[in-house]
Amino acid sequence: MTLGLGPGREFDAIRSFVGADGMPDDVLLGPGDDAAILDGAWVVSCDLSVEDVHFKRAWLSNREIGYRAAAVALSDLAAMGARPVALVVATAMPAREGGLDAIQAGIREAAAEAGAAVVGGDVSTSIEALVVDVTVLGRSDAPVLRSAARNGQELWVTGPLGGAAAAVRLWLEGREPPASLRRAFARPPIRTALAEELAGLDGMGAMIDLSDGLAGDAGHLSVGSGMRVTIDADALPILPAVREAVGDDEAESVALRGGEDYELLFTADPGTVDAEDIERRHGAALTRIGRVESGRGVWLASGSGDPVALSGGGFDHLRHET
Amino acid sequence: MTLGLGPGREFDAIRSFVGADGMPDDVLLGPGDDAAILDGAWVVSCDLSVEDVHFKRAWLSNREIGYRAAAVALSDLAAMGARPVALVVATAMPAREGGLDAIQAGIREAAAEAGAAVVGGDVSTSIEALVVDVTVLGRSDAPVLRSAARNGQELWVTGPLGGAAAAVRLWLEGREPPASLRRAFARPPIRTALAEELAGLDGMGAMIDLSDGLAGDAGHLSVGSGMRVTIDADALPILPAVREAVGDDEAESVALRGGEDYELLFTADPGTVDAEDIERRHGAALTRIGRVESGRGVWLASGSGDPVALSGGGFDHLRHET
Repeated sequence: MTLGLGPGREFDAIRSFVGADGMPDDVLLGPGDDAAILDGAWVVSCDLSVEDVHFKRAWLSNREIGYRAAAVALSDLAAMGARPVALVVATAMPAREGGLDAIQAGIREAAAEAGAAVVGGDVSTSIEALVVDVTVLGRSDAPVLRSAARNGQELWVTGPLGGAAAAVRLWLEGREPPASLRRAFARPPIRTALAEELAGLDGMGAMIDLSDGLAGDAGHLSVGSGMRVTIDADALPILPAVREAVGDDEAESVALRGGEDYELLFTADPGTVDAEDIERRHGAALTRIGRVESGRGVWLASGSGDPVALSGGGFDHLRHET
Repeated sequence: MTLGLGPGREFDAIRSFVGADGMPDDVLLGPGDDAAILDGAWVVSCDLSVEDVHFKRAWLSNREIGYRAAAVALSDLAAMGARPVALVVATAMPAREGGLDAIQAGIREAAAEAGAAVVGGDVSTSIEALVVDVTVLGRSDAPVLRSAARNGQELWVTGPLGGAAAAVRLWLEGREPPASLRRAFARPPIRTALAEELAGLDGMGAMIDLSDGLAGDAGHLSVGSGMRVTIDADALPILPAVREAVGDDEAESVALRGGEDYELLFTADPGTVDAEDIERRHGAALTRIGRVESGRGVWLASGSGDPVALSGGGFDHLRHET
């Protein structure tokens, strides 16, 4: 389901539906989704990138640090199907270290790729770590919520999975990741144009971006929508280099739980997604990886065995009777 | 001058006037003022508060750290005369330290005082310092720019000055500041309601908030407006406790250059500000401290002597011939 934001006081109904009760009148959707929604079709979110928590300076160039910080923030706008417009950027970095220009160049590069611009910000010294906070502002007349998955819909994901998490695993083991894994971490995909198109699709359901890992983000979508989500293990589009780096057995776990992919996970009515056409025009693979049913929890189906609960399964059984 | 934002393509003219050339269509004012302006009368800015750079944890309670981080960000909206609506808050703090709940409570308190709400954010651990970045979003049909001071206008400032800077000076000397100084630093004034009223005043000119110190911020206003600004030293509303803490001689310097006051500096046509009425209704002192003339630079006038240049004076003389 997409959320049509008409003018006037029907906002009140939308607000109480999507969860902005008790918020100022100009706030249509408060905390809880990938981004908040403000009057005038504005969508806003922020993402924090902290040295030694989200990245190590040894892993990335300064320009990549900036690019990545902006790309992961823009991913929240993609998750809403919003068109990026503006970035507000706060950077705190140790006075003794250089690189601010390169960081800002990376941020501007990612912004420009998404059709947006840096409109303001703040810069400070810091005592130890480099911290970049990117607030993104975009527009959408019909933002896509994570709560809009419907019974019977297909579950889709963009891009190959697992590359960024595998790169981090190798770095932490003291190994240098191959180029395709390194790139997945250093230059997360900016899926905003593709997401805008998906948002306008007849039969579109819910959407979320993959930051916590497929299993976790599918869980957010499942809880948000009050639906059971089943993922087909054999359909997972695992990046080939992930299998090479961590082995076949581990590769599935990395793709499911690794996080940091910044791809899109969404649901749509059967037969409404033309994956081939989208791939040709946007250069992003689209894979149907599962389905939405009434129920609760995220389940993993593989081969002919019974699906196993990845999250929320117990809750599902408890709820089954009511 | 205030900037009337009508609908439609006259935006283009406004954008090229206020400086958003080369920006996406939805950006009406890019970087350079206290905040950016977006289509739909939205005003957006951010302010970064970094431990051991902007404050020390020993000086403030966690709740005060949060309150202050939000108040200084809201001050940018006040500077534009915008009505606060929403805050997006990113917090990075060392995992071993508690206090996040209290910090967030302080942020919510300041937001509520301004009629706004926290609509989103991000939380991360950090290795060393506590970092809070607050992005504020407000609305204004007629935002006040720092470039709008006109020849012949009066220069006004809200509140008493110097308290926060004097508190910092005492703390750094190992002394405990008296309550009024401590409070000036820990709970900066939230002048948004007063600023909204000023923005609607007939004869309103430019406005800016005092973060860098009166002399520096008057310099921004002077450069932005292409005007000479003269401050009357004898009119400075120095907080009495500042004189007691640092002595009469130093007090003027603290009030002029100390920073962190988060009061409003603005210009208005002579006779258009009813200071007594505003003080009665908003509880904030209003003091006329100088004037705007054609020319360049910020000048300090005291007694019967010639004004001395605080900034930009040389530039003024160079330009005088042209």
